[in-house]
Amino acid sequence: MAGVVPPFPDIPRTVGPLGDMPADEFRTAGHALVEWIADYLQHAERYPVLAQVAPGEIARSLPGQAPEHGEAFGDILADIDRVIVPGLTHWNSPTFFAYFSICASGPGVLADFLSSAFNQQAMLWRTSPAATELEAVTLGWLRQLMGLPDAFEGVIYDTASISTLHALAAARERALRGVRRTGLADRDDARGLRVYCSDQAHSSVDKAVILLGLGHEAVVKVATDDAFRMDVGALAAAIADDRAAGRHPLAVIATTGTTSTTSVDPVPAIADVCERHDVWLHVDAAYGGAAAIVPGMEWILAGADRADSLVVNPHKWMLTPFDLSVLFCRHMDLLREAFSLVPEYLTTSEAPEVRNLMDTGVQLGRRFRALKLWFVLRYFGAEGMRSRIAEHLRLARLFAGWVDETPGYERLAPVPMSVVCFRVCPPSLHDDPAALDALNERLLQALNATGKIFLSHTRLRGAYALRVAIGHARTTEAHLAAAWRLIQDTALGA
Amino acid sequence: MAGVVPPFPDIPRTVGPLGDMPADEFRTAGHALVEWIADYLQHAERYPVLAQVAPGEIARSLPGQAPEHGEAFGDILADIDRVIVPGLTHWNSPTFFAYFSICASGPGVLADFLSSAFNQQAMLWRTSPAATELEAVTLGWLRQLMGLPDAFEGVIYDTASISTLHALAAARERALRGVRRTGLADRDDARGLRVYCSDQAHSSVDKAVILLGLGHEAVVKVATDDAFRMDVGALAAAIADDRAAGRHPLAVIATTGTTSTTSVDPVPAIADVCERHDVWLHVDAAYGGAAAIVPGMEWILAGADRADSLVVNPHKWMLTPFDLSVLFCRHMDLLREAFSLVPEYLTTSEAPEVRNLMDTGVQLGRRFRALKLWFVLRYFGAEGMRSRIAEHLRLARLFAGWVDETPGYERLAPVPMSVVCFRVCPPSLHDDPAALDALNERLLQALNATGKIFLSHTRLRGAYALRVAIGHARTTEAHLAAAWRLIQDTALGA
Repeated sequence: MAGVVPPFPDIPRTVGPLGDMPADEFRTAGHALVEWIADYLQHAERYPVLAQVAPGEIARSLPGQAPEHGEAFGDILADIDRVIVPGLTHWNSPTFFAYFSICASGPGVLADFLSSAFNQQAMLWRTSPAATELEAVTLGWLRQLMGLPDAFEGVIYDTASISTLHALAAARERALRGVRRTGLADRDDARGLRVYCSDQAHSSVDKAVILLGLGHEAVVKVATDDAFRMDVGALAAAIADDRAAGRHPLAVIATTGTTSTTSVDPVPAIADVCERHDVWLHVDAAYGGAAAIVPGMEWILAGADRADSLVVNPHKWMLTPFDLSVLFCRHMDLLREAFSLVPEYLTTSEAPEVRNLMDTGVQLGRRFRALKLWFVLRYFGAEGMRSRIAEHLRLARLFAGWVDETPGYERLAPVPMSVVCFRVCPPSLHDDPAALDALNERLLQALNATGKIFLSHTRLRGAYALRVAIGHARTTEAHLAAAWRLIQDTALGA
Repeated sequence: MAGVVPPFPDIPRTVGPLGDMPADEFRTAGHALVEWIADYLQHAERYPVLAQVAPGEIARSLPGQAPEHGEAFGDILADIDRVIVPGLTHWNSPTFFAYFSICASGPGVLADFLSSAFNQQAMLWRTSPAATELEAVTLGWLRQLMGLPDAFEGVIYDTASISTLHALAAARERALRGVRRTGLADRDDARGLRVYCSDQAHSSVDKAVILLGLGHEAVVKVATDDAFRMDVGALAAAIADDRAAGRHPLAVIATTGTTSTTSVDPVPAIADVCERHDVWLHVDAAYGGAAAIVPGMEWILAGADRADSLVVNPHKWMLTPFDLSVLFCRHMDLLREAFSLVPEYLTTSEAPEVRNLMDTGVQLGRRFRALKLWFVLRYFGAEGMRSRIAEHLRLARLFAGWVDETPGYERLAPVPMSVVCFRVCPPSLHDDPAALDALNERLLQALNATGKIFLSHTRLRGAYALRVAIGHARTTEAHLAAAWRLIQDTALGA
């Protein structure tokens, strides 16, 4: 790989025993970095997508203690090429097809650069009016693009795990008034709380329930239909059974875009059940919410307007660098009830109508994350966001078609969005599930070892499935066609 | 302010209906941004430190919906000067003396730029060996600089709120085996859990306890001595009383560097109490931990080697852009017990000795945060980190001396680190606490309205106190002297 990217120049060290890096040194270093990053973003696919290092290799190549004397910035940058890049799995490569394919677009990366320099800590309105108000404005834009009602107020967190945690904390506060003060242990009404999600729901639901002190046993995994969507009859029955047994249904998490297959739970019917039983409805649209901005795909969020809360992650499928997760909530007052706590040193004189973001979160501090979403939405425009996501949808359907029409391959789930689950399935192994699983596992390892593409896997109805996820702005049909050829060629030897 | 910073150039829009910002456009935009940021970092004090906008002003100056068509990058950047900068409170200014003074140094900002471009999501070792292993290496460096024992394993989170939350979740898991599965409501041993901290402890303790379902009533605020340090006798008595009453002491949070005055709780004596009662000891060194790297200041962490966990925030006093908080924990296995949860789609084939960062946190996703701390430690070196923090300590003592020697001023707390609490106290008002408070509140508002400096306040033994916090790499004695002159001049008219 040496010599492919522009080498970092010598950057004379001009910093003294006090003070920051001098401005001219910052300029030299910054310009070199811009050149390097521009090249990286343009040619990320030249690197092995999945890091090919052995465990411990990176740690062993670095000193065991901090240098006593400061180093020249160019020497640090040289270690990017030498140590760091070989240890990266290139999430920002157009041939990263694992998990969910994400994309730190150019305008998003540049905005985040600015955000780091501003170093805003938007706990209070006054500590960053710009971050506070731009967050409201940008989330208003996003809400409109997604077709959600004005009643949803938004707040930015780091990850969907934290967004869902806050949603469930608000649900806990609503169901058990005063729980913030009393805790769970001494309350009869805190016994037998139940949180429902499908057997395809994300592990963040489990972790949030554990953290909130409800216990993992509180999570009821509802069966799914043949398209991996929550079985609403099973949900209604589970809730009725729990009520009859004296347990307390607290919340239902409906997922629009599950992690394994991007299946979409039937939210309208789930909302009916939730309304009937006065249960909090949280919609996990962390991935799928983005697709709802595409004309013809609004169905993904059908019924979501009736939810109590919804999470969507612009850092997944909206060209925004990690991390930026959005919680839309109809009851921001409940989040405040659950979390507002103002010590004297944070009291302010602003009018009460000013929103202080620390009041709706467990994290006091927060970066200026809205800036990167604002840049991305303005640079690409609503039209450009739609066209890119629509292209990913098209590419996924195209890939699904290739799988469907190729003997010896089998698609294992519908493709409502941009993830295709499939396996190689030679006729000789049709009746040998264990051998099929082993073959596909070998195939996955062989593919990822090429460094040309990176796929991940899941299990669907027990079967080992390969996943191709599409979501990077630079991913083209040519990338996908090459991946498909590589998969077929590699399968021959697996 | 127009014309002071380099104007952004025209950047021809070359992006098509698909794909990312083209590389040459990225280069032009990036170089312009480097120039702008270099100038900003060098001259941040030219802006009003505390934003001088009115509530709603920024939101009203922006469109209510996303643009349909993408905009030229230069037009977006122009709004940085027009809309965003006036709405910033300049945390990265050398005359920001409020809350804790933080600093996004040049090398830290550049590293974060690279981190945004890499867009790592280090949930699994394999999804970012570099982020996973560099985190371990860099935290090893930090641990040595702070003089902490090897038994402390580190993990990076976003904020101290989340670090302390994880520490208390681990404590909960240790005290109530299986609570992860059962939850709190049905367990007798979950009743009457108690968490102790001083009346000067940070609100993140309260929020963590609330979130974990223990209830705010579980927090016992222990009295402090005349230097705002936890009264260990009172702690021991509270724990003994609670035990006698059948309650269950769960954890003690000792703070080394409290938010109001940077007072340091007597950790060795607190550790004795915790050992005697088998109670988890968490040390909140979010701010103060940095000072312990300075020769002669090791006392700040005396006894911390006996803690179960400790939080330190490099984004506070270690020149690292927000956000980067570190939890050191002696029982990483307990964090794993509390949080590890591996769905099929995240299973990997790596040897079990590989560390997957998702196993020790509620957040599945995590940015490549270690990169910026690594850059900062290498660029400044151990020596350069020490000299800068030592300078802040010197400046704070200097300022405290000015207060002490000036008639009509009163220092309200000792100055163990780099925060000075004081008030103007004219002889005529000595016996009128309400008038003194009102005067100092007016003074604070008048000072912050100048835009030249930004101070915040607290209350100490009921008295309204101004705080001057020092922690930015560019803050010099001249800045501080000018601030002191401004305070004295402004007090004459307040």
